[in-house]
Amino acid sequence: MTLPEYRALVDERLDQLLPDGDLVLHKAMRYSALAGGKRLRPSMLLAAVDMLSGDRDEALDFACAVEMIHAYSLIHDDLPGMDDDDLRRGKPTNHVVFGVGQAILAGDGLLNFAFEVMLERALQAPGRERPCLLAISEIARGAGVSGMIRGQCLDLEAEGGIAAENYEVLLAEIHAGKTAAMFAGSLRAACRLAGAAEAELFALSEYAVAFGMLFQATDDILDVVGSAPEVGKTLGKDERSGKLTYASVYGVGGARDRALLLRDRAVGALEPFGARAKLFRELADSLIDRTR
Amino acid sequence: MTLPEYRALVDERLDQLLPDGDLVLHKAMRYSALAGGKRLRPSMLLAAVDMLSGDRDEALDFACAVEMIHAYSLIHDDLPGMDDDDLRRGKPTNHVVFGVGQAILAGDGLLNFAFEVMLERALQAPGRERPCLLAISEIARGAGVSGMIRGQCLDLEAEGGIAAENYEVLLAEIHAGKTAAMFAGSLRAACRLAGAAEAELFALSEYAVAFGMLFQATDDILDVVGSAPEVGKTLGKDERSGKLTYASVYGVGGARDRALLLRDRAVGALEPFGARAKLFRELADSLIDRTR
Repeated sequence: MTLPEYRALVDERLDQLLPDGDLVLHKAMRYSALAGGKRLRPSMLLAAVDMLSGDRDEALDFACAVEMIHAYSLIHDDLPGMDDDDLRRGKPTNHVVFGVGQAILAGDGLLNFAFEVMLERALQAPGRERPCLLAISEIARGAGVSGMIRGQCLDLEAEGGIAAENYEVLLAEIHAGKTAAMFAGSLRAACRLAGAAEAELFALSEYAVAFGMLFQATDDILDVVGSAPEVGKTLGKDERSGKLTYASVYGVGGARDRALLLRDRAVGALEPFGARAKLFRELADSLIDRTR
Repeated sequence: MTLPEYRALVDERLDQLLPDGDLVLHKAMRYSALAGGKRLRPSMLLAAVDMLSGDRDEALDFACAVEMIHAYSLIHDDLPGMDDDDLRRGKPTNHVVFGVGQAILAGDGLLNFAFEVMLERALQAPGRERPCLLAISEIARGAGVSGMIRGQCLDLEAEGGIAAENYEVLLAEIHAGKTAAMFAGSLRAACRLAGAAEAELFALSEYAVAFGMLFQATDDILDVVGSAPEVGKTLGKDERSGKLTYASVYGVGGARDRALLLRDRAVGALEPFGARAKLFRELADSLIDRTR
């Protein structure tokens, strides 16, 4: 299957799964979770299950749960007190439409509902409890206080004071958490569902972490290239957002160099899968192409 | 065991489980989750497991997860945009100490970590996957968009306009969600872990829902009696908080009458357990005693 085909599967199932009542909560959850987007994390989870000859039908609800967690993290990230953004993908952010309180609850609701959906799926298939538990656990860890939430916390802390010599380490830690951990959680969950060997789990984790960092690096480059004249090596924070980005720490040229290294690391990790990993190889290449 | 003994078990284990690093996130999570409190939900979960001859050691991490979820809900409830409270149990609220952004993340972290802890425990005991999955699922449902989060959403919505004839229905719905659902989730999880019969699951759910509403009713009464002259039947919102409470809808006398009915319903549901349910019977009575 192609990425657009995976994406269509995810879009359709998300629409079925999410509660659709009169509550503001339901509307707010749907507003953000069904706002489009590339569905990259769930599509990659499904593609990995296919590559490892797992059961795509079973994996679909886990993929949707990953997307719900992604959506919740964006809602909370955009809140006043966090990044305080009014626009996301060209649309008003959740709290602008529904108010801060309902947006907090919509985020909480999406996170909790992601677990409800996965647990429900795990209970539907007697005999599959252990692989499902392992998969939920991988996703929980990726999203959690050693993964995504840790990255967000470091990101917030970094907006306060940091010594200049720590910029590079901190940048890596922030994005290992904020971005890479959920890619890793998604692909590790796919391995657990498909009963992959330890070596495969290890290889896909390697890929996912490098891919996640690459994703962030190219995003940071596009953000600068798309909106401001190219700058040299800066080793500091982005002036507009006050955030550490690949472009603000390494300059656009340096960030491009790092992106190429990360692409190589990601593609290198796919070696054990040979031709079966075509989609994952192309995905890494496509991120590099975006910045050209 | 007595309630103070259960509480000590929970306090000790929570302290062990919660991450204890230099991150603001860790400090903020511990600040709220270790802030004391009665540990009523986790203690009741453990007491139910004991009553049903389940494995208390296994249940302890599930009990702690319930308390983490309770702590997260209080952090988010206190935020600006929600209730905007500066004090909780006599101490500054989480966002007052750590800032709004870190408080949002601490809440997210506690919710996610609760699942991480339960999933980890479920994987530690081969052969116990299914009862553990069922227990996690009960807790997730109690906390989720048909349970606690639903109640919080209705509570927020009620601060906007509502037709007067809907006050009683809405009050019941809010507290069935906000308060009763987590008591029900906790006791239902205990039943799943202990392999209780369907009739026992049903009876303890009945008890938990009545107990949760009773808990809220007596809380509302104390809130008024402790701070303002007694008022008659008011059928409206509390003037200070703008919220629907038992006292604001039924007056203090009416709220007391309802509390007695709820106590009877709760105690009546315990009949199948006979003398084994002594602790649960006394708990319901003690709530009534508080308001005398």
